[in-house]
Amino acid sequence: MTKRPDVWMVGSIGIDDVETRDVSRTNLLGGSLPFATIAASFAGAKVGAVGVVGSDFPKTFEKRWNKFGIDLEGVQHKAGPNFRWAGKYDGNMIDRTTIRTELGVFADFMPLLPESYRSAPYVLLGNIQPDLQLHVLKQAKRPKFVALDSMNLWIDIALPSLKKIIAEVDLLTVNDGEARQLTGKWNLRDCATEILKMGPKYVLLKKGEHGALLFTKKEVFIVPAYPVKTLKDPTGAGDTYAGAFMGYLSKARSLNSRTMRKALFFASAMASFCVEGFSIESLEKLSKAAVATRVRELEKMTKV
Amino acid sequence: MTKRPDVWMVGSIGIDDVETRDVSRTNLLGGSLPFATIAASFAGAKVGAVGVVGSDFPKTFEKRWNKFGIDLEGVQHKAGPNFRWAGKYDGNMIDRTTIRTELGVFADFMPLLPESYRSAPYVLLGNIQPDLQLHVLKQAKRPKFVALDSMNLWIDIALPSLKKIIAEVDLLTVNDGEARQLTGKWNLRDCATEILKMGPKYVLLKKGEHGALLFTKKEVFIVPAYPVKTLKDPTGAGDTYAGAFMGYLSKARSLNSRTMRKALFFASAMASFCVEGFSIESLEKLSKAAVATRVRELEKMTKV
Repeated sequence: MTKRPDVWMVGSIGIDDVETRDVSRTNLLGGSLPFATIAASFAGAKVGAVGVVGSDFPKTFEKRWNKFGIDLEGVQHKAGPNFRWAGKYDGNMIDRTTIRTELGVFADFMPLLPESYRSAPYVLLGNIQPDLQLHVLKQAKRPKFVALDSMNLWIDIALPSLKKIIAEVDLLTVNDGEARQLTGKWNLRDCATEILKMGPKYVLLKKGEHGALLFTKKEVFIVPAYPVKTLKDPTGAGDTYAGAFMGYLSKARSLNSRTMRKALFFASAMASFCVEGFSIESLEKLSKAAVATRVRELEKMTKV
Repeated sequence: MTKRPDVWMVGSIGIDDVETRDVSRTNLLGGSLPFATIAASFAGAKVGAVGVVGSDFPKTFEKRWNKFGIDLEGVQHKAGPNFRWAGKYDGNMIDRTTIRTELGVFADFMPLLPESYRSAPYVLLGNIQPDLQLHVLKQAKRPKFVALDSMNLWIDIALPSLKKIIAEVDLLTVNDGEARQLTGKWNLRDCATEILKMGPKYVLLKKGEHGALLFTKKEVFIVPAYPVKTLKDPTGAGDTYAGAFMGYLSKARSLNSRTMRKALFFASAMASFCVEGFSIESLEKLSKAAVATRVRELEKMTKV
């Protein structure tokens, strides 16, 4: 594909070992980028992926990823071991402990934006080192809307860089704990107010199974989480959420309040499918019709 | 008042010492019954209270409670110390530790339903020993709708009695942790399914700042929590929620899905006011107009 994507996304591409309450699985396709890009493809978006894989990244993973029509031109192939993550979920299936992180080729990742991506209007800067997020964003030509995901690690060890990239984006998404850590405030409205002062017009605070809150200077939107019947593996739910949201926006005609809300319901539905299987497995079995049904169901569940 | 109330409620009447992150307060009006009945009065309901106070229960408390037009005929006055509770909230202002419980006259509480309450159509059995809940319910004449609140203590030490009263009511409300403990299931939909098998037609699972979920055999309704700007004291929020809900229902013409949803939005708004002050203090400053405004605000925050 040499055509301009609707949205490009940067993030990690991993090989995961995941241990849950009931099941342990090894060598799963993981990292933020596969989840985010695949989720966006369900919105009908043309998605470009920016990341790096090592020499041990299975060909089958690339094939499965490719099936969703994601453009992988921005994925670099490097000699050396792929990024690997191993984690274990607590009994509550929410909190998790990282057992092992092996950065491999991800340690020297220097994202390079393919020429065809540069003028894409939508950008998702997935959770990677904030200097790299800034580095890759600078290669883009005046995107219309940039969303940024981050995590506690960068608040701990790279706060000045993180604040620099936050000032450059339209939307920051973090979870509630990270928002508190970033702002030193406890009340989530206070957190949002502080983050909005840092630059973004939107703050999306994710609360996992409890949904999310979208803040602007004028509005609060409460986004419900779909109460899933089966929770197999929460890995990737946040990335699926962010990716689906950006995919939806990139196909919408405007960025008004109603569009944002519709996009978040779509994202919430997509994330609920994600956790019903390990890795991207439930997304591989998913039809657009099933997504539309769940969005309608979620709307029905929240309508007064 | 000798006229039949719209709804009667049984529960504890306490004198509380509350320690929060920022402030410590002593000798506050507490217990489930003042919160629940006062909240119901905001729906315009005529409310009858069933409880017990000791000889040290301040006259001023009764006066303040009375101002909301609650009928206190069902409140027994006994010689001996009033029920007292002291608790301390964690830094997150959600989890709390009980520092001291002195049952006092509450230890021998035997609820007696005033004659004028017996044919009231709506009943809220607030959190007291389940045998007492059954005892007082048996004094009522075929109420139209009975809601039951309970807690982990009774699951631990009086499970057979609890299951007996659960089988008699239309709605059970517990928090998510209690639902898991009661059913041995983790997934909240599974919890709800199990509880619905025990008898109730409705299960309301409260999740504090994350809202609530109402389950029937056919439907799930996701109830948002209003994101408060100021959280002073969470004590009584759950009781306010349950009381407001029942007050609203008792003034509604039907019990259809839309009414239930409207009632839950009203309850959610009322609970959000409750936590903005200590004890019933914020409810004492509250106008019905302010409640209506917040309900509309909450509806706007959730509308797609």
